[in-house]
Amino acid sequence: MEIIKGFPSTSQDDYQLNMINIIRHAVRNFGKQQIVSRKPGGLFRYTYKDAYARIKRLANALYGLGVKIGDRIGVLEWNTYRYYEMDFGIPGSGAVLLQMNLRLSPPDLSFVVNHAGASFIFVDETLIPIAESIAPQCKTVKGWVILTDKELGDVETKLSPVFSYEEILAEAKEDIEWPNLDEKSAYAACYTTGTTGNPKGVFYSHRNVYLHSVAVVMNMELSYRDCLIELVPMFHAMGWGMPQAATMAGSKLLLPGRYEAVDLGPIVETMVNENVTAGAGAPAIFMPMLEYIRKMDVKPNFKGARFASGATEPPVALMKGFYDMTGAEIIHAYGATETTPLVGLNRLKPWLNEMYTEEQRWDIKRKQGYPPVGIDVKIVDPEGKELPWDGKSSGELLFRGPWITGSYYNAPGTETQFTADGYWKSGDAATIDEEAYIKITDRIKDLIKSGGEWISSVDMENELVSHPAVLEAAVTGVSHPKWEERPIALVVIRPEQKGKVSKEDILAHLGKKFAKWQLPDEILFVDAIPKTSVGKINKKAIRDKYHDIYIGGK
Amino acid sequence: MEIIKGFPSTSQDDYQLNMINIIRHAVRNFGKQQIVSRKPGGLFRYTYKDAYARIKRLANALYGLGVKIGDRIGVLEWNTYRYYEMDFGIPGSGAVLLQMNLRLSPPDLSFVVNHAGASFIFVDETLIPIAESIAPQCKTVKGWVILTDKELGDVETKLSPVFSYEEILAEAKEDIEWPNLDEKSAYAACYTTGTTGNPKGVFYSHRNVYLHSVAVVMNMELSYRDCLIELVPMFHAMGWGMPQAATMAGSKLLLPGRYEAVDLGPIVETMVNENVTAGAGAPAIFMPMLEYIRKMDVKPNFKGARFASGATEPPVALMKGFYDMTGAEIIHAYGATETTPLVGLNRLKPWLNEMYTEEQRWDIKRKQGYPPVGIDVKIVDPEGKELPWDGKSSGELLFRGPWITGSYYNAPGTETQFTADGYWKSGDAATIDEEAYIKITDRIKDLIKSGGEWISSVDMENELVSHPAVLEAAVTGVSHPKWEERPIALVVIRPEQKGKVSKEDILAHLGKKFAKWQLPDEILFVDAIPKTSVGKINKKAIRDKYHDIYIGGK
Repeated sequence: MEIIKGFPSTSQDDYQLNMINIIRHAVRNFGKQQIVSRKPGGLFRYTYKDAYARIKRLANALYGLGVKIGDRIGVLEWNTYRYYEMDFGIPGSGAVLLQMNLRLSPPDLSFVVNHAGASFIFVDETLIPIAESIAPQCKTVKGWVILTDKELGDVETKLSPVFSYEEILAEAKEDIEWPNLDEKSAYAACYTTGTTGNPKGVFYSHRNVYLHSVAVVMNMELSYRDCLIELVPMFHAMGWGMPQAATMAGSKLLLPGRYEAVDLGPIVETMVNENVTAGAGAPAIFMPMLEYIRKMDVKPNFKGARFASGATEPPVALMKGFYDMTGAEIIHAYGATETTPLVGLNRLKPWLNEMYTEEQRWDIKRKQGYPPVGIDVKIVDPEGKELPWDGKSSGELLFRGPWITGSYYNAPGTETQFTADGYWKSGDAATIDEEAYIKITDRIKDLIKSGGEWISSVDMENELVSHPAVLEAAVTGVSHPKWEERPIALVVIRPEQKGKVSKEDILAHLGKKFAKWQLPDEILFVDAIPKTSVGKINKKAIRDKYHDIYIGGK
Repeated sequence: MEIIKGFPSTSQDDYQLNMINIIRHAVRNFGKQQIVSRKPGGLFRYTYKDAYARIKRLANALYGLGVKIGDRIGVLEWNTYRYYEMDFGIPGSGAVLLQMNLRLSPPDLSFVVNHAGASFIFVDETLIPIAESIAPQCKTVKGWVILTDKELGDVETKLSPVFSYEEILAEAKEDIEWPNLDEKSAYAACYTTGTTGNPKGVFYSHRNVYLHSVAVVMNMELSYRDCLIELVPMFHAMGWGMPQAATMAGSKLLLPGRYEAVDLGPIVETMVNENVTAGAGAPAIFMPMLEYIRKMDVKPNFKGARFASGATEPPVALMKGFYDMTGAEIIHAYGATETTPLVGLNRLKPWLNEMYTEEQRWDIKRKQGYPPVGIDVKIVDPEGKELPWDGKSSGELLFRGPWITGSYYNAPGTETQFTADGYWKSGDAATIDEEAYIKITDRIKDLIKSGGEWISSVDMENELVSHPAVLEAAVTGVSHPKWEERPIALVVIRPEQKGKVSKEDILAHLGKKFAKWQLPDEILFVDAIPKTSVGKINKKAIRDKYHDIYIGGK
């Protein structure tokens, strides 16, 4: 889009939105505020002021290693105070923090390192095995910096050359003049892994992360009175930008270190002791946490606390349970690596209290929320035509704004994931209601595009399993010479019903809800539905298997 | 300062921070939220959605008048919903809203219009006399748009040509494609009037006002649950950016129309009826409001409300009175036209509650507050050397950041009000304590710069009147060939003491507190101290009268 120049301002418009200003501000106004970081055997506790002293040393240590403005520095670490220091020290120095997702496969992880061209990798002692598994493939890496309390000589590793984080910090001087970085310079990079192809790189600018932090502070209503716990991996979309937002607000920050869903007792205990009032995580953490709390004799008092829950829709039982047992509000948050991530946060507007029953309100709370100020959103039909916000029309969800990626780094062929007017295509199908609440209805790739119209595979699967004889079902689109795609259904019949149900019975059942043209051309009775390793229907496997059934025939 | 480019990002860094996005967001997420505007005879009430429909018509109406991107449009209006519409419609169209301070003298006001080159002026019917008083001098104005509910034919005016705001809106179409304005384009202009010279123009960019709105929302903690009353004139630094911030937060907005400190009953009544929770004003309004409330049988319940009070330090009695009688917090805010204005807001950090007694806390609350994230601040000595934040060292207060002006529009000779590293010189002398609270101690021009050191005239005046024989005193610096400036003191002796006190007595009294080199070289006994029309010591008159006493002699 063409940018039109108006009358010149006298403002300091060249003053750069540089992330190092966030921590400088926190130290200046809230220097005494604490960062509490769990580590094996206890808590590490210091202040923003203390952290900043080490951040300055870290930047000087990077220069000492030969790191230059624009270099990419990989980080393999848990949610610790050292990650926090790297969150500011690496980008502050002018380098880019490359977030390394320790759950990726070694080939994906080494692809990320090579593709980004990381020159150094900072790795926690406990993650050395992962680093060692990719080291031979990492062509651009000049050295490995070990995050450990031990002497370097006591650390066992084949990585080479190795440095100790604590030693290079101790040797560096604290005094620094920060580079006046262009706000459009990359602050950090995160690679997104789709179901197909190589991971794709999103390089967030300082401006991007600065304005995203603003959105988190405003929408989570964070302040210096808050204590925020970071239960999102800091290696994924910067832990949803929570440490940056907490710093901007001057909140106390609680970092859980390495934590497991199976053992949340010590985390809950710390949350209680430190008077937590805010946080971010996912149902994968909040569900077992609720189970843990359910068994506690004295329930924690988190009254007024706001926990953002993302990744997937939080069950009503989770939201209600937390509210009833602790007083905390579970707030559904929505986003993606490409959106930094916050593009939807579900706060209930006061006037909705009057319009709806309690049950309806819980249903609204399950929606993906409304977009923060600064983000443009629309839903479009398969032809790209914008659809109304009526809570009914479902289309692909598109986002545009300062913290949305405009491309993937050095990834030819991915341009199709952006519209001509600059929107990123989320791949999610959604409705938006008159109050701007987004409701994801499907993944676009799970929608079947038949003759220019969409058919929801998820809706159809739900309808299929509502038939008393059906145990499981999967619906997917396969290529078709005339209609582009046509739906097919895989159906597992309950053992006791086998042979008693015909394809026509199933189609008649679906016909009560779906138009004739939407009905699957094939109902395939199978013994089992292909599943992924995490138990989801493996649509890709189904599509691969049945890909050819209409092509060149029928 | 050189801007250093780092690694390129993939972010949508060219997405512009355009103020029209603020109202678009408010309509999208909080379209039902109300704007309530007092007018003679009652309340005008509509929603953000309604306002936006008229804002779009306004922009089209401007184009219809021949207004082009970059044109300057003057506005002479009270705090009304029409001003609100112009706040978005004029800059949204690509033009610049020129704020016309209706308290300026006609020569100053016509200077502003001519200097900015306004092409149209929007004027409230009740302010037509002011417009008529300057019209003959306004060379660039092509037309006058009258803000009135009447038919244009029923409005008596000599202004020509005239248009009716309501008529041009009614005739304009609502559909608009907003120009994609460069965020560095001017959004609005405000002229600051010093004690000397012509008014000086500050042209705020869209980026400037956008980021300032963020600062107001974050520091006032505004949300869609708030109802904010605007008790600052909207023609002065955009009413401290409150309508813009309220829109960003989705708050209900209360506009008092034309209001007078002498008759605040109807305002208080509206605040109570509309459940006000936030606001902005000055002691000039809050003091009589408190007096009004003091006489009410049933005190208003403003528990939890936050009222920002600027312009001058709020007396403790005011803050305490409001808190005790209504539950509202008066929050001292600090800034200037050149700073949009917010550069200090006084929220009491929780840990200060434990460190200080209640009385000490009230003293802290009188300070000018700490700067929001995004603003650089320092205090410097007369040589420009930065001073420590110890709550004791006093120096000139300098500001730098996205919502600080970097120059005055077309005003040769004003470059000296900026430092080489891009700070604007506030002209205020201040201390900053370890918690970043700013405390104004003096105006720099009331400081005497002698031999590279500062002498506080206010401190010295206070010491002089503490002498039992002294009725009044004024201290000012006058030019000196060797020391640059030297202090002189004008002293009025109480009638009954006349002739009984010598200059030496006075100097001996001052000598108890001041160093020898700081003592005035002249103690001039006078019958009266020159005063300004508002009763302040007229330092300028004194300096003018005694300007020459050291030059070319002594």
